[in-house]
Amino acid sequence: MNVEPEKPYPIYTLLEIAGLLDAELRIGKDADQDVRIEGLASLASATESKVSFLANAKYRSELTSTRAAAVILSAKDAEYSPVACLIHEEPYLAYAKLSHYFNPRPKPVLGIHPSAVIASNVKIGDSVSIGPGVVILDHVEIGDNVVISSNSVIENAVSIGDDVTLMANVVLNFGVKVGSQVVIQSGSVIGSDGFGYAPSALLGEPTAWQKIAHCGSVVIGDRVEIGANTTIDRGVLDDTLIADDVIIDNQVHIAHNVKVGAGTAIAGCTGIAGSATIGEDCRIAGGVGITGHISIADRVSILSMTRVTGSIKQAGTFASGTSTQEVTKWRKSAARLNQLDELHKRVKALENEKSR
Amino acid sequence: MNVEPEKPYPIYTLLEIAGLLDAELRIGKDADQDVRIEGLASLASATESKVSFLANAKYRSELTSTRAAAVILSAKDAEYSPVACLIHEEPYLAYAKLSHYFNPRPKPVLGIHPSAVIASNVKIGDSVSIGPGVVILDHVEIGDNVVISSNSVIENAVSIGDDVTLMANVVLNFGVKVGSQVVIQSGSVIGSDGFGYAPSALLGEPTAWQKIAHCGSVVIGDRVEIGANTTIDRGVLDDTLIADDVIIDNQVHIAHNVKVGAGTAIAGCTGIAGSATIGEDCRIAGGVGITGHISIADRVSILSMTRVTGSIKQAGTFASGTSTQEVTKWRKSAARLNQLDELHKRVKALENEKSR
Amino acid sequence: MNVEPEKPYPIYTLLEIAGLLDAELRIGKDADQDVRIEGLASLASATESKVSFLANAKYRSELTSTRAAAVILSAKDAEYSPVACLIHEEPYLAYAKLSHYFNPRPKPVLGIHPSAVIASNVKIGDSVSIGPGVVILDHVEIGDNVVISSNSVIENAVSIGDDVTLMANVVLNFGVKVGSQVVIQSGSVIGSDGFGYAPSALLGEPTAWQKIAHCGSVVIGDRVEIGANTTIDRGVLDDTLIADDVIIDNQVHIAHNVKVGAGTAIAGCTGIAGSATIGEDCRIAGGVGITGHISIADRVSILSMTRVTGSIKQAGTFASGTSTQEVTKWRKSAARLNQLDELHKRVKALENEKSR
Repeated sequence: MNVEPEKPYPIYTLLEIAGLLDAELRIGKDADQDVRIEGLASLASATESKVSFLANAKYRSELTSTRAAAVILSAKDAEYSPVACLIHEEPYLAYAKLSHYFNPRPKPVLGIHPSAVIASNVKIGDSVSIGPGVVILDHVEIGDNVVISSNSVIENAVSIGDDVTLMANVVLNFGVKVGSQVVIQSGSVIGSDGFGYAPSALLGEPTAWQKIAHCGSVVIGDRVEIGANTTIDRGVLDDTLIADDVIIDNQVHIAHNVKVGAGTAIAGCTGIAGSATIGEDCRIAGGVGITGHISIADRVSILSMTRVTGSIKQAGTFASGTSTQEVTKWRKSAARLNQLDELHKRVKALENEKSR
Repeated sequence: MNVEPEKPYPIYTLLEIAGLLDAELRIGKDADQDVRIEGLASLASATESKVSFLANAKYRSELTSTRAAAVILSAKDAEYSPVACLIHEEPYLAYAKLSHYFNPRPKPVLGIHPSAVIASNVKIGDSVSIGPGVVILDHVEIGDNVVISSNSVIENAVSIGDDVTLMANVVLNFGVKVGSQVVIQSGSVIGSDGFGYAPSALLGEPTAWQKIAHCGSVVIGDRVEIGANTTIDRGVLDDTLIADDVIIDNQVHIAHNVKVGAGTAIAGCTGIAGSATIGEDCRIAGGVGITGHISIADRVSILSMTRVTGSIKQAGTFASGTSTQEVTKWRKSAARLNQLDELHKRVKALENEKSR
Repeated sequence: MNVEPEKPYPIYTLLEIAGLLDAELRIGKDADQDVRIEGLASLASATESKVSFLANAKYRSELTSTRAAAVILSAKDAEYSPVACLIHEEPYLAYAKLSHYFNPRPKPVLGIHPSAVIASNVKIGDSVSIGPGVVILDHVEIGDNVVISSNSVIENAVSIGDDVTLMANVVLNFGVKVGSQVVIQSGSVIGSDGFGYAPSALLGEPTAWQKIAHCGSVVIGDRVEIGANTTIDRGVLDDTLIADDVIIDNQVHIAHNVKVGAGTAIAGCTGIAGSATIGEDCRIAGGVGITGHISIADRVSILSMTRVTGSIKQAGTFASGTSTQEVTKWRKSAARLNQLDELHKRVKALENEKSR
């Protein structure tokens, strides 16, 4: 589903946009299908040179007062639009596709920057961009249309598919396998050693730890997206596995031998401990902690900052934690919680009293 | 409020320190205003060549036994001091200013290291220090007295004000705007793409995700401080905004289109989800999680590890979560919590019984 | 406890492995002590060229059906093994040691890569490997057998002991001291400035913050392991201290002036606020938050995502938080928790009624 702007300068007419999106352009008789569109904007802030979108009925009131040149929306919302309509079955998807045509970020310069350090036995595909200060060690294989941005490090025996973008300062450790159409934001580390040590009781206290070599790797599927400063550890004996179409946000920690199923989304600051298995199409919110060696079924949603300490065996939505309160009320709630077992016993006593 | 040591070697007399701080030096008749001070120390550990400070009345007992050469303190505490006094209206602020004069860290070497890779169209101010391995791409603008430390990457069209320090391995992605007197610690990433994708229902399960281009940027005000390995994502249509005088700790995640108001402090490991708006002068402790699309009023304090899932509309202190217990007691509390709705019903039944 | 493979190609006979581990090889009369072993595997997945291990009696059923060439186990489990036994007092420790012999990761190339930038006054030991793009500033001292991987940055006056490995993109800031046999994974930052600022009431609102210079450093003991994208801040006046044999996972935040005692293990995404003191041999699980200026005794275990806001004065296991529930049940629990103080009062009223 990658999209590629066709023009160097991001101005398109409404008619061109309808063509790019395969959308129906419905336009008032006085309107101009050749109006020049310079970007996207929200319904409320759009001006006459912008296209907007309506993806959620709750914003319909904003639709009726928008000044956008046109709005991407579904057929059933078109009657409420005061401006031209770009009718699409999935307005949000269409907007997402269109956004790439207006991205002001310059395309990476093709070729290999002379300051990059690349081992002589590396295989590199066509139309790649390898930035300044990049380091690529022995026996790496890189596909076509790959972008490796400044100061990233690709260690030995890594393989990277086609149409992959690594932003600046990414590290792919030894032997990591990355599929095609993958994007990794800056500062992420894929293939670090996991947190695996054997304590030695023989050696007394404090504990001395024997590091376990991590002989597995990390295998990342196609169309995976990984945010900034995320870490994915390599496996101990087998590989850590990130399936196709997984999207992972910033500052996520995925430990050794985790398996994440296809289509799953993992939001920022979430940590997944070793050997946990996450199903397909799960939605894991931010700040969640998932214990090691458990399984989460397909299509499980987990709310933010939930502490998951056992397997979840069927689809559904799950949560833990408590609500925010003003601090004096919260102190009472928190104190009372610690007396809860005693309160149960007191209620039981009252019930026994009553039944006598 | 930046301060700049005037001497290459950090030794100052008491009289000089009084001048640096604009403090009143009150000294016993046998004491020496020219005693050489070599550094700062706590009241308890200070020796005769150190200056200490008293910023909180609860440490007054430590004051009475200190061996420091002098103590920075308020006029009302001076009578309790057994040693020379540096009297200042805000002792902690004065101590903070003085600390820079004794910082042993060498000043960065001025100039551009020959190994740095800098595009020919970059504008660079006076008295800059650009370290080894730094990469600066096209159309970047850099002010005066800027330090860019080793292996940092500054992508296209970034602008950086005056008196900014970037430590090693910082990444500023395309188009990020940084004000003046900003400090960013190592490993932080500013301007990564946010976690924005449109799911495609048309394509069935598992979900395929269409990435949304992030056409906005990140705008960082003046005197902002950002810790190590923090990430701030760029906006989708508009910019992510960090106002003047915001201080942000390590490992913080600030998602796309967040706005943080002036003077707000955000401690380590906190995550703020997309399009949340944080007011001015807030104090957000460590490990807090703030949901997207909500607003926090000015002067709100949030205790550590609080889960904020709704807007907070007025100043105050807020918390969620439970207290630490010994694990066997905690297991009972946690189990009882899950029976709490049932307990409420049992109490209701007892009350109904009573009223009959 | 570092182990070093002796062979370039990781194939060993059972007899050689027994020698490497100082284990007793107990083998059936038809079996072959010279069978070639190519790697390690779990009991369930091992084939005839693999060695496995039994470290936990609950996997004994997997032992009885394993197809491994041999199993590392304790003497008391040997009778259940259908295959050759490598008998060792601590099977998990023996497995951990053996894992390094089969690690496929190539050994780093010895020497200094020509693209590394190294100040002329740096002292470097024997048999070091300094990778491409590494930057080493003035007055650094580096021991023997040290590996500094690609694009890492070692700032002024850092000292590094013997047998240390820094993976790619590690930053050691000014003056940090690292012991011997230390491993630091990619993206970690040691010695960043801590989150220390003095607010200036004199300057009105929003708050203006005066940064406090961090004149202390970070001192890391021997045999410490630090994961990926972890940050350890330098001290303000004194040093932040990580004792010998501490192991720290990914994405951990350790603030200024924290002290971590020997043998303690800290799992991923945990944050420890400033000036907290952690005892020896503690086990701190993932996502834990520890408040500043508190003390944790020796041999304390803290369960995942616990919020520790006060000192823990004796050994034991501690937790906070609530259990995961299906979301509709959880909403009731969370709502009822906020009514808990009121419920206590209602129970008290019922009890008073009864006693009248």
